Amino acid sequence: MSSLIQSVKGTRDFYPEELAARRWLYKAIRSVSESFGYQEYEGPYLESIELYAAKSGDELVKEQSFVFPDRGGNLIALRPELTPTLARMVAQKQRQLVYPVRWWSFGPFWRYERPQKGRAREFFQWNIDLFGIESPEADAEIVAIAAGLFKKVGLTPDQVKILVNSRRLVSAELSALGIASEKQAEISRWIDRRAKMNTYAWEAYASELGLEAKQIIQIKEFLQNYDTWKKSDDLSRFFAGIEAFGCRDYVDFDPNIVRGLDYYTGIVFEAIETDGEIRRSILGGGRYDNLLADVGGQPLPGVGFAMGDMVFSLVLEKHKLLPNFGNRPPAPILVTVFDESLLHASISLAAELRSHGFDILNYPESEKLSKQLKFADRMGIKIAIFLGPDELAKNLITIKVLSTGQQYSLTREHAAEALHKQLAGLPPS
Amino acid sequence: MSSLIQSVKGTRDFYPEELAARRWLYKAIRSVSESFGYQEYEGPYLESIELYAAKSGDELVKEQSFVFPDRGGNLIALRPELTPTLARMVAQKQRQLVYPVRWWSFGPFWRYERPQKGRAREFFQWNIDLFGIESPEADAEIVAIAAGLFKKVGLTPDQVKILVNSRRLVSAELSALGIASEKQAEISRWIDRRAKMNTYAWEAYASELGLEAKQIIQIKEFLQNYDTWKKSDDLSRFFAGIEAFGCRDYVDFDPNIVRGLDYYTGIVFEAIETDGEIRRSILGGGRYDNLLADVGGQPLPGVGFAMGDMVFSLVLEKHKLLPNFGNRPPAPILVTVFDESLLHASISLAAELRSHGFDILNYPESEKLSKQLKFADRMGIKIAIFLGPDELAKNLITIKVLSTGQQYSLTREHAAEALHKQLAGLPPS
Repeated sequence: MSSLIQSVKGTRDFYPEELAARRWLYKAIRSVSESFGYQEYEGPYLESIELYAAKSGDELVKEQSFVFPDRGGNLIALRPELTPTLARMVAQKQRQLVYPVRWWSFGPFWRYERPQKGRAREFFQWNIDLFGIESPEADAEIVAIAAGLFKKVGLTPDQVKILVNSRRLVSAELSALGIASEKQAEISRWIDRRAKMNTYAWEAYASELGLEAKQIIQIKEFLQNYDTWKKSDDLSRFFAGIEAFGCRDYVDFDPNIVRGLDYYTGIVFEAIETDGEIRRSILGGGRYDNLLADVGGQPLPGVGFAMGDMVFSLVLEKHKLLPNFGNRPPAPILVTVFDESLLHASISLAAELRSHGFDILNYPESEKLSKQLKFADRMGIKIAIFLGPDELAKNLITIKVLSTGQQYSLTREHAAEALHKQLAGLPPS
Repeated sequence: MSSLIQSVKGTRDFYPEELAARRWLYKAIRSVSESFGYQEYEGPYLESIELYAAKSGDELVKEQSFVFPDRGGNLIALRPELTPTLARMVAQKQRQLVYPVRWWSFGPFWRYERPQKGRAREFFQWNIDLFGIESPEADAEIVAIAAGLFKKVGLTPDQVKILVNSRRLVSAELSALGIASEKQAEISRWIDRRAKMNTYAWEAYASELGLEAKQIIQIKEFLQNYDTWKKSDDLSRFFAGIEAFGCRDYVDFDPNIVRGLDYYTGIVFEAIETDGEIRRSILGGGRYDNLLADVGGQPLPGVGFAMGDMVFSLVLEKHKLLPNFGNRPPAPILVTVFDESLLHASISLAAELRSHGFDILNYPESEKLSKQLKFADRMGIKIAIFLGPDELAKNLITIKVLSTGQQYSLTREHAAEALHKQLAGLPPS
């Protein structure tokens, strides 16, 4: 026997059980997104490398993206994120769209990173964005949607938190410390590195960037002060908005949040698991008011976030909030086969029942009844239907409820009605 | 203004209206697949090139696939089709799975072809397959599912047909004409080219392949005889099965169908639009009993088909069977904003109504009421809610039904009940 051909490292196979889990997440995301009146959209999975060149940050494009020349020699990227695509799509129809534009999406993305728990090279991401409104209430709406998903799946404010900061606030603080604005992006990246470096190395790095000892101390003070948001009108209105959306308990100010992407201009936020066991953030986003112009459109304010499926699933698993998809029957009803001579009659019966709206499995061949019932049991099927020569002669079918063993015959004309009642009375799987 | 960054040739942007159309198709596919008890699964979008090397046919892999080396130097393909992935996945869990395995999937694929009407480089495909049963009834089940989708979306047997042939029958015919089995694959490809070549070139090509004039005449006779299936026990049983599934009117024998993929071993079929205006096939499939072993598994019979979204959509459009997704409201209800001072009160009201299960749009800022109502109208919203200072003082809200102009106030406690009734009484969008 030849050896099995392997799947590509960092990709996942979605067997029915795993697909059901992904679909469950997709449905929860849809439900929350639609409850706020957002419309589903989707971009292409391939984009020209230029689209990311401007603003996605060097690390994401140059080091973490799958990039390749197509057969015509153009450099193509497997999209590593959606926001630039979204900006391109909005820019293309900028005059026709009705504002505010509120859109959401759920689809695949690719990053060439080392696969580990909670990280794959091919993963799924929820993106949700609002265009055309610059207010702190628009920011609050986007954050409230994130909180809305947490609430919907049963995650409590003790288990997850959305940490919010403002790039404008950080910039004002840095300016007040005498740091020139052209230097601030670099300093922000340094702040972003803090959790990943030891204190000594982190401070040494600051000196290399030209920060004075006093400035480092002052920045550290800023990073420890969880009340600075009260100085900011925007953040004060943002938190009042969050109160109005009814999710203040899920949201905190955190001056340490800066986010890696270069296009953010206002609030930035991340959701984390509070006890810190799962160290990667659950979702991240912010306001980006210049991106439309960067991809060639007219200026238009935007705010949104992205949430990957993998870290979120780890958090759900940890808190036992993922339903068990292991034994969901593919259909509730199995039509069995009495013998070879009645195979086509069984197929006809199943077709007839399908036309009444039932999902029906045909046992596909003549086989011992015990084997057919064992199959039904392993698939979690609720009802088996028998059609033997006696039944056929008398225009009857026999229904067996597998959980109870209850069994009865009835005329074929009454089958649909009986099955509807029978299924309605059984516990859901 | 800088110029807009362009999307990649042969990809599509799915704005909400187009996404809604794709989702409508996905739902119809889900409904039909589930009615036969098939389970949804999905493979990775990236696969190693080896997976296709054996059996997908040279043209598909070498000429039409996006293939690139990853950062580690391995050759990766953007999947051009799903069957090899499916075979790999089944082979990996061959001992644990319960047979028959009945699975379906709907996802993206890529082929580097010249984009044209009904063809893109990035497209979606429905795949549905049955493993573990070798009978003509299993073949019939798969074909019946294809007919089931046609019926569900309203395509009649006059408009579309599923044309079926058998590779075994073709092989027997060719053998009877003295053509050696090692030559038959080549001859099949020649038969497959017939519709794409003029008669002279096609017959000249046959001579090049070494066919004698008499053999060419005999093959042409075979290709014109629509009754040959009656000589085949398999096809006779297949068509009896199709009768039992209740879809005989959608299915015909056609000796000209051979299909391009090398892995087919038994029946092969294609669905076409009957009047021939849309020349590409709607779907295609067949039986492939050796593929599992080819990817490293144990031998296991399989049968299935794939249907792309693009040709099918052309057919639906032509017959005016696609619903209009242009003016679907993102939510049925808009909460308006009286003025800046009541913005947060309006947000709170919307949050309260969402907690009762409603999908609600917040108008996101203070603005003239006429502008807010114009927005509601453009979005197709059914109900506007007003919350002014009077209403707030008396714990009331005002509901306006936009289609009729009907307007009334009621206490906030009764809002949810009234809205449920109001929405239930309005025509669906």
